[in-house]
Amino acid sequence: MRLLIVNSNTSAAVTEIVALSAKRFASADTDLDFATGLFGARVIASRTENTIAGHATLDLVARHADGCDGVMIAVSYDSGLRAARELLDVPVLALTEASLLAALTLGTRIGLVIWGQGATAVYMELIDTYGLGGRICGTRRVDCPVPETPTLRMAMDDAVIAAGQDLIDHADAEVIVLMGAVLSGRSLDLQDRLPVPVLDGMRCGIPLLEAMVRIGAKPAVSGSYAIPGGRASEGLSPELGERLKRTRRGE
Amino acid sequence: MRLLIVNSNTSAAVTEIVALSAKRFASADTDLDFATGLFGARVIASRTENTIAGHATLDLVARHADGCDGVMIAVSYDSGLRAARELLDVPVLALTEASLLAALTLGTRIGLVIWGQGATAVYMELIDTYGLGGRICGTRRVDCPVPETPTLRMAMDDAVIAAGQDLIDHADAEVIVLMGAVLSGRSLDLQDRLPVPVLDGMRCGIPLLEAMVRIGAKPAVSGSYAIPGGRASEGLSPELGERLKRTRRGE
Amino acid sequence: MRLLIVNSNTSAAVTEIVALSAKRFASADTDLDFATGLFGARVIASRTENTIAGHATLDLVARHADGCDGVMIAVSYDSGLRAARELLDVPVLALTEASLLAALTLGTRIGLVIWGQGATAVYMELIDTYGLGGRICGTRRVDCPVPETPTLRMAMDDAVIAAGQDLIDHADAEVIVLMGAVLSGRSLDLQDRLPVPVLDGMRCGIPLLEAMVRIGAKPAVSGSYAIPGGRASEGLSPELGERLKRTRRGE
Amino acid sequence: MRLLIVNSNTSAAVTEIVALSAKRFASADTDLDFATGLFGARVIASRTENTIAGHATLDLVARHADGCDGVMIAVSYDSGLRAARELLDVPVLALTEASLLAALTLGTRIGLVIWGQGATAVYMELIDTYGLGGRICGTRRVDCPVPETPTLRMAMDDAVIAAGQDLIDHADAEVIVLMGAVLSGRSLDLQDRLPVPVLDGMRCGIPLLEAMVRIGAKPAVSGSYAIPGGRASEGLSPELGERLKRTRRGE
Amino acid sequence: MRLLIVNSNTSAAVTEIVALSAKRFASADTDLDFATGLFGARVIASRTENTIAGHATLDLVARHADGCDGVMIAVSYDSGLRAARELLDVPVLALTEASLLAALTLGTRIGLVIWGQGATAVYMELIDTYGLGGRICGTRRVDCPVPETPTLRMAMDDAVIAAGQDLIDHADAEVIVLMGAVLSGRSLDLQDRLPVPVLDGMRCGIPLLEAMVRIGAKPAVSGSYAIPGGRASEGLSPELGERLKRTRRGE
Amino acid sequence: MRLLIVNSNTSAAVTEIVALSAKRFASADTDLDFATGLFGARVIASRTENTIAGHATLDLVARHADGCDGVMIAVSYDSGLRAARELLDVPVLALTEASLLAALTLGTRIGLVIWGQGATAVYMELIDTYGLGGRICGTRRVDCPVPETPTLRMAMDDAVIAAGQDLIDHADAEVIVLMGAVLSGRSLDLQDRLPVPVLDGMRCGIPLLEAMVRIGAKPAVSGSYAIPGGRASEGLSPELGERLKRTRRGE
Repeated sequence: MRLLIVNSNTSAAVTEIVALSAKRFASADTDLDFATGLFGARVIASRTENTIAGHATLDLVARHADGCDGVMIAVSYDSGLRAARELLDVPVLALTEASLLAALTLGTRIGLVIWGQGATAVYMELIDTYGLGGRICGTRRVDCPVPETPTLRMAMDDAVIAAGQDLIDHADAEVIVLMGAVLSGRSLDLQDRLPVPVLDGMRCGIPLLEAMVRIGAKPAVSGSYAIPGGRASEGLSPELGERLKRTRRGE
Repeated sequence: MRLLIVNSNTSAAVTEIVALSAKRFASADTDLDFATGLFGARVIASRTENTIAGHATLDLVARHADGCDGVMIAVSYDSGLRAARELLDVPVLALTEASLLAALTLGTRIGLVIWGQGATAVYMELIDTYGLGGRICGTRRVDCPVPETPTLRMAMDDAVIAAGQDLIDHADAEVIVLMGAVLSGRSLDLQDRLPVPVLDGMRCGIPLLEAMVRIGAKPAVSGSYAIPGGRASEGLSPELGERLKRTRRGE
Repeated sequence: MRLLIVNSNTSAAVTEIVALSAKRFASADTDLDFATGLFGARVIASRTENTIAGHATLDLVARHADGCDGVMIAVSYDSGLRAARELLDVPVLALTEASLLAALTLGTRIGLVIWGQGATAVYMELIDTYGLGGRICGTRRVDCPVPETPTLRMAMDDAVIAAGQDLIDHADAEVIVLMGAVLSGRSLDLQDRLPVPVLDGMRCGIPLLEAMVRIGAKPAVSGSYAIPGGRASEGLSPELGERLKRTRRGE
Repeated sequence: MRLLIVNSNTSAAVTEIVALSAKRFASADTDLDFATGLFGARVIASRTENTIAGHATLDLVARHADGCDGVMIAVSYDSGLRAARELLDVPVLALTEASLLAALTLGTRIGLVIWGQGATAVYMELIDTYGLGGRICGTRRVDCPVPETPTLRMAMDDAVIAAGQDLIDHADAEVIVLMGAVLSGRSLDLQDRLPVPVLDGMRCGIPLLEAMVRIGAKPAVSGSYAIPGGRASEGLSPELGERLKRTRRGE
Repeated sequence: MRLLIVNSNTSAAVTEIVALSAKRFASADTDLDFATGLFGARVIASRTENTIAGHATLDLVARHADGCDGVMIAVSYDSGLRAARELLDVPVLALTEASLLAALTLGTRIGLVIWGQGATAVYMELIDTYGLGGRICGTRRVDCPVPETPTLRMAMDDAVIAAGQDLIDHADAEVIVLMGAVLSGRSLDLQDRLPVPVLDGMRCGIPLLEAMVRIGAKPAVSGSYAIPGGRASEGLSPELGERLKRTRRGE
Repeated sequence: MRLLIVNSNTSAAVTEIVALSAKRFASADTDLDFATGLFGARVIASRTENTIAGHATLDLVARHADGCDGVMIAVSYDSGLRAARELLDVPVLALTEASLLAALTLGTRIGLVIWGQGATAVYMELIDTYGLGGRICGTRRVDCPVPETPTLRMAMDDAVIAAGQDLIDHADAEVIVLMGAVLSGRSLDLQDRLPVPVLDGMRCGIPLLEAMVRIGAKPAVSGSYAIPGGRASEGLSPELGERLKRTRRGE
């Protein structure tokens, strides 16, 4: 199968990191396409940048999703997720929702280790939109710099382990989820250092997306997830403008 | 005071209707500026178009909010509301949240009369993000065409009254809120025909925004609503790109 | 417009303080009437005294609300709020609900700084009746004496700032609300000392009540908020007994 | 043991009906005292009258509770319940809460048959304050006149059975609770006519109150349920005024 | 009346302790039967053992409940409670639910003192199935060994008091419930040492079960609590296999 | 990989049906083992039988799970799911939870089509334990006989389609989940007849279980999901009794 991995940040360097991580978790016979955001923040770090990134996600899938069997939004704020599901005929997942779906099956009480100042509130807003806030038993923030050197990487790893252990000790966490693209894939490397399951978005998202493709649900042709089509718009990329004219309704 | 009224749709005709409605409810000494979306759907009618409109809202406030004392997002999906609050130093309201805030003070059980096919699910998602879903006792949809003639207007009015009465009779609604820009301001004209209070977004939003301006809360200079500033971006309008470089943090 | 400000405590000294605070936040062309509770606790400080105060509120509005355009219950337990809305034809607000409505528009996570021992549980019970408990991220209590001297006032202010900062640092509060009549109006004086918006009941309540008067919703003539009228009673003040005979039903 | 049964209505005729019902469900060795409200509505039927009744309840228990082992508030709006618990050293129950506690043990989904126009919203507000709203699967209203004749009684019974069966058939109710003093004790007479357990407040409340007396929990001497005492008040009955001076704190 | 007390643990020594505690709280004219689990863990301490104990409970009630007026499941995980209610014609209570029902009437905010490592999550899962999770303000764990000597008993008591006081001081607990069979009946002995009401399962459960027997609700003959009957099974005890053939439906 | 498919019913005929369905959805290189319950109901249809089935599930996994990479509990009541997760070192899924996880990614509002009288309440209890009740927009029951002939199959299919369409039309369902083993796999055959995605447990569960195996989370060695081990028991199968002596703690 062919999957499109959308990096809604505008940094090509981030896309390279995402690609390394996605390839690590994809099946041997899965082909991966990658796309980088054409407008918006280099690295999304606020509600404002996330709102812009929602548009960027839609622009990218309008350009690149045709011919793909599934789409992964490789942003931990899941920018534009529900809209992309409405727009496309194939399964769409995103990092945070995917990691939570896996976590639901491994423990009752989920603890979040979050990278990034100010991100906790935004993540909790997002998780509440999924109706899953009640399963979160606590959050801990790690405020390390981006780990561009082995020393910084070790410091980050130690901070993550300390935060996870604190959630286990003081919030009875039964599974730990690492939040933030910087921690993408780290759960696999660190899982021997924590006494409960530890997950992250890319590691969960790629296998779960492959599963959703295989399940093969047909897209909605009525209701709120069947995009109406035939819509007039202005100022969008030709690809996205064209896409708004398509519909599945009445098929 | 000076208020900016943002129409995140790209239809200038809609802005004219919005302007008429906003002026009806503004105080005599309030000046109103209006802005029309520069990209996106003519009339927002799906999650996809709403996601794009979130970006359009931010683009508009980056261009026009300087010098204003408050901002009203005149879209019933409240497109980009929380992000705009993060970006700006002044109060920001939007139609649906404003109508609900007023409704909270007039009855315990709120019934929604919704214009537009498929919109119910999106409105309920929005209202749940405000933590107010538990106050909604029921929803009813009116599927009339846009009321461009007096005959259509009368048909629409009758449908709205019937839907509201049904919510009162079968869902014990104690206050009715009309949802959708098409119904903007209609609650004032129709309130004699329903036996409980009836509200809409513009009628509530303008006076409440004026009140918020007078309350004069200072904006956040730390935490998730204090936009970080100094951010690199690409492909945005110069105004929005510049705005992402500003911050209130550390002021 | 003319507003009635009801002090359901029986202390005239408290009414004087309330009056100073209310006048500070009212528009120039708003006339304010004040009324002091005729029975019950000097200063309400328990569920028992609050229950009695609910009756006292109704007694006062039966005596004084005719001719007023809106009513503010100037008690932070919002004593008798829903009943007063049922009884009267005009908008009724109260301190705590009003401060929360404003706070909802300024941050997602609301922290409460509470004056008074034992009050936390009662406030949370009240807020849960509004369906807003999910927006409260934490509470902190300040146990200072009533600030009757400048020295006590400074100590109280410092305690409030410390409590608010603690909510920001450890509960990710994005807006702070000061609870308790003693703190009425203090949010305006203290807002430069906290890095997120800070509010209190009177400062929010008066402008929001003026806005509700201007919105001009018609009162319920059916349903649970349309008081039945024609009711027999005993032992009440003549004004309240008479009021129970009136109804809006069938108007 | 000796129980005080408080009728917060001011109708002595209602007290007689309450007394008949209470005696039917009390143990042989339980002594019952009865008290009738001294002020307020003859029969409570609105939020306003319920708010006044809260005060009336407190006035009655201040006058009569000394020497009693437990108190039943024989009003289906549970008027003044939490305040009475704060004020007294003995267990206090009320009709609606008691019937729900019993219902919780007999089925997962509880259906309510409610007597009285407009009462549904007020009951649901009350039940939400107990945190039990999630267990209610549906409500049905019976709008019969007070059953003062056998014919009216039969019509009422038939309406109750029809409403209960409708809740079973269309809302999957597993237990039915009859709400409203008019239906007090009727669940015992009607239970053979419904295929799931059916309960009412008095039938559940008296045995549960006797159980609470036997459990013998000690009252709070700190926290929000330990009334502060030493309180100044005005305009109250001497008994209630005196009671506000007592405290359990520091005992 | 005759009550069956089911110890779903397979330890007869535990049954003896349970019997002592149950007799302490039963009325003089109540006869108590006791039964010990025939298979499963000696002392239930995990979800796995609790799941097995659910079956053991049903096996015991199938063997012994005929002729009894009520059943108490004397296990703090309430093993098999809802199933037993479905299977039997008489009231069934269990320790944790019973203690919470009593606690609901004594305070708004309930704090839990829990004996046993790992048990907190399982108790919270259980309490959430009752819809009562929102009333729990905090939990504290005591990790003492089983108090087989007076010295250990004193250490346990001190730990319980310290945990309860901590819930009062830092979580505003208004009533404390002791969780775990080891603490059965201890609330009565310790209640003078805590300033808010303190409860445990057996002390609440026996009087409440007697009350439920006296209330005398008729069992469901339709709906999900009316066991279908006529069921084929294999490998069960003859008593339980036979019981699955019985039904109340259509009676 | 090797997966164990556990049929906790004691009917071998059901296991054959389960096997056909499971093989249909498994990857080519996945080996499937099947096990049939050794005690309990032929076909689980009540809380009682489900409680017994929880034990039967644990007995089967104790006998057969060694050497398997994942376990599917092929019962739509998910009998014994959390306990099996505690007991085993490999991922465990069950039908209803798996279908809901997939549904969460395809629509916001999930409608349930349920086969079996009385099952609705039990399913909702189950779903609430997952914290997912808020995502369910409605339920519909189909009361057809087991479809043992093509005619009955067609009648069942028609009833399912009608129920699903009704959920779409009247409850705004955006995705439909078929509940009950009888409907296992039918969603694939029927999905062209409904205008929104339609799912069932086996079709979602097998691919998702394969994904969870590939994600490869390490099991808990502390906390409530790390079974304590070293436990004494009586009357269990030797395999389950032995299993209770094992632990992962301290590994």
